[in-house]
Amino acid sequence: MGTTFIPGLEGIVVSDTEVSLLDTEEKMIVIRGHDLIELSKTKKYLDVLHLLLEGDLPSEDDLHALMNRFSKNRTIPEELMQILSLLPKKAHPMDAQRTGISVLANFDEQIDDRSAEINKQRAFTLLAQLPTLTVNSFRILNDQKVIEPRDDLSYSANFLYMITGDIPSKLEEEIFDKSLLLYSEHEMPNSTFTARVIASTNADLYGALTGAVASLKGNLHGGANEAVMYLLNEAGTVEKFSELLYKKIQNKEKIMGFGHRVYMKQMDPRALIMKESLEQLSNRDGDSTLLEMCEKGEEILLEEKGLYPNLDYYAAPVYWKLKIPIPLYTPIFFSSRTAGLCAHVIEQHENNRIFRPRVNYVGKQYK
Amino acid sequence: MGTTFIPGLEGIVVSDTEVSLLDTEEKMIVIRGHDLIELSKTKKYLDVLHLLLEGDLPSEDDLHALMNRFSKNRTIPEELMQILSLLPKKAHPMDAQRTGISVLANFDEQIDDRSAEINKQRAFTLLAQLPTLTVNSFRILNDQKVIEPRDDLSYSANFLYMITGDIPSKLEEEIFDKSLLLYSEHEMPNSTFTARVIASTNADLYGALTGAVASLKGNLHGGANEAVMYLLNEAGTVEKFSELLYKKIQNKEKIMGFGHRVYMKQMDPRALIMKESLEQLSNRDGDSTLLEMCEKGEEILLEEKGLYPNLDYYAAPVYWKLKIPIPLYTPIFFSSRTAGLCAHVIEQHENNRIFRPRVNYVGKQYK
Repeated sequence: MGTTFIPGLEGIVVSDTEVSLLDTEEKMIVIRGHDLIELSKTKKYLDVLHLLLEGDLPSEDDLHALMNRFSKNRTIPEELMQILSLLPKKAHPMDAQRTGISVLANFDEQIDDRSAEINKQRAFTLLAQLPTLTVNSFRILNDQKVIEPRDDLSYSANFLYMITGDIPSKLEEEIFDKSLLLYSEHEMPNSTFTARVIASTNADLYGALTGAVASLKGNLHGGANEAVMYLLNEAGTVEKFSELLYKKIQNKEKIMGFGHRVYMKQMDPRALIMKESLEQLSNRDGDSTLLEMCEKGEEILLEEKGLYPNLDYYAAPVYWKLKIPIPLYTPIFFSSRTAGLCAHVIEQHENNRIFRPRVNYVGKQYK
Repeated sequence: MGTTFIPGLEGIVVSDTEVSLLDTEEKMIVIRGHDLIELSKTKKYLDVLHLLLEGDLPSEDDLHALMNRFSKNRTIPEELMQILSLLPKKAHPMDAQRTGISVLANFDEQIDDRSAEINKQRAFTLLAQLPTLTVNSFRILNDQKVIEPRDDLSYSANFLYMITGDIPSKLEEEIFDKSLLLYSEHEMPNSTFTARVIASTNADLYGALTGAVASLKGNLHGGANEAVMYLLNEAGTVEKFSELLYKKIQNKEKIMGFGHRVYMKQMDPRALIMKESLEQLSNRDGDSTLLEMCEKGEEILLEEKGLYPNLDYYAAPVYWKLKIPIPLYTPIFFSSRTAGLCAHVIEQHENNRIFRPRVNYVGKQYK
């Protein structure tokens, strides 16, 4: 074929983008010219969402308009609720979320219009609907009462309220919002690549997002945060967690929550922020077992494998302490990331070349 | 970033594969060591489906077992039928098909098992269900009576019968089967790439296929066959078709059904087979208007743009003559291609490296 095959396209540039960059030299996650970690210190998820979709940080007025817009668009079609209730109870929430987004395409009256303007409107509506879809699909699958969104709460407070049924404290709201902000965009992970590949056929935003949910469900990608929490719970104590990790290392099993193809030789800076949140929640509870377990794990993986924790590793115990059911970790990740995904799909539609690569045939001889 | 950005990954090898190759030097579509065009002359769609999933052509016994298996698995869950009936009537059949496949994931009791053995079973079941899902979702959306599959008909005869409500003639059955065979696999088009990218996160087969339907819906990919037919119908005569094409060429509009990134300087050999089928159907009907229009179009595009027709260009009028509703063209393409897609997903799961490429940041300055 003339080109060398690079498995997983490691290091290969697949797109021009104005959306984001992992700058490994400057150790910076760049979001439209801003440092994501700096943003996480002073801004909210909605600010970054606005930055991603509109290209700049919102003014007070912008933010107010955005919150109004979200309040108005939070409900999902009644038919979608009925559809969700027809899914088997054992279904994975990611399968339900993917189905929900696929269904929403059918309700879009302007589905064939893929202009940037309409795509942006579509993105805002979807982002308003996603907490409702995500939480209520999970509630329906688990025979819990469907819950109505609350207009008197912030985006993140409402999202967390819908999950737990309790109005979150200021600290809980802030930490959950921070997690959404940190998950909102991260250059070209598999799910974003999936969305852009699909969008490059001129397929619509819902189709691209449906593929992205599917990608994020994989345990080598979004599913990692859930895997981390199951592991922590399986262990339960620092000692047992050490044992478990050493055993896995010996058996050459992959340990979720560690390593990142792009960062490699440093800690995911987002993980550090979530670690701080875990410290805050541990202080509040007077129980730092999870924090100590995580720190021990960090130590072991660095010593034994030279690997650093990524965001999922510390987001998992934070979500646990926020009383979020484990199967919702990845759907929440997707819900937040939809901001970045929509920015990428809009960009792809605006300056498109269809992805159509080649293969290296290693099958049966024929000549 | 160190690497050059090649838009659309043109010419870039993204995978080792034993499944297929477009050998442009030998002018051959290689399917597991066989020539697809040769196969189309003596074999049926089910033979190629078996070749794709099992690695070799079936014996008489294999084929008998396969047909039995398909008869047993043709029905889809009652809940899925109810879900389809909750979609708005104006929905696109591709959105319904994508939703249907996404829903089926929820009904798979072994969803977390991604071994080649279970994936293969899953693929056979899905391929049995796809004609039922594809046709009945379309029927429901169009307030037509749902139709039961018929066990006394071949795979392709049943598929076509479910679409039209009439038992097809031998000629119709053969031609429809040939179209499925030709659509079954084609190396690394966007939809197959999408499926492999998603599967590389360890996501399940349904997720990968959901993304592939989304990709195929785009009018730069699978949607092309529908676009061709709308164009032919808009014109109606050879003269008007010429006018329309010249106008589009002058306006630098993309004309669907022509050109293929990989073939470039020759006719898609699959198009030639479908052109023969169109001739047969034109003779049967004593009406060769569509054939003459297509030939004129072929002439014009070659002269004016140096472009050759691809499979979609001749599949469209063939499907029209088989009385298949236009919105079903792409869903049928997907249904057939599922054979190849499943082979690729199984291969990806067996020898995996997650796709995680990089970008060329062209956004706001930050340093």
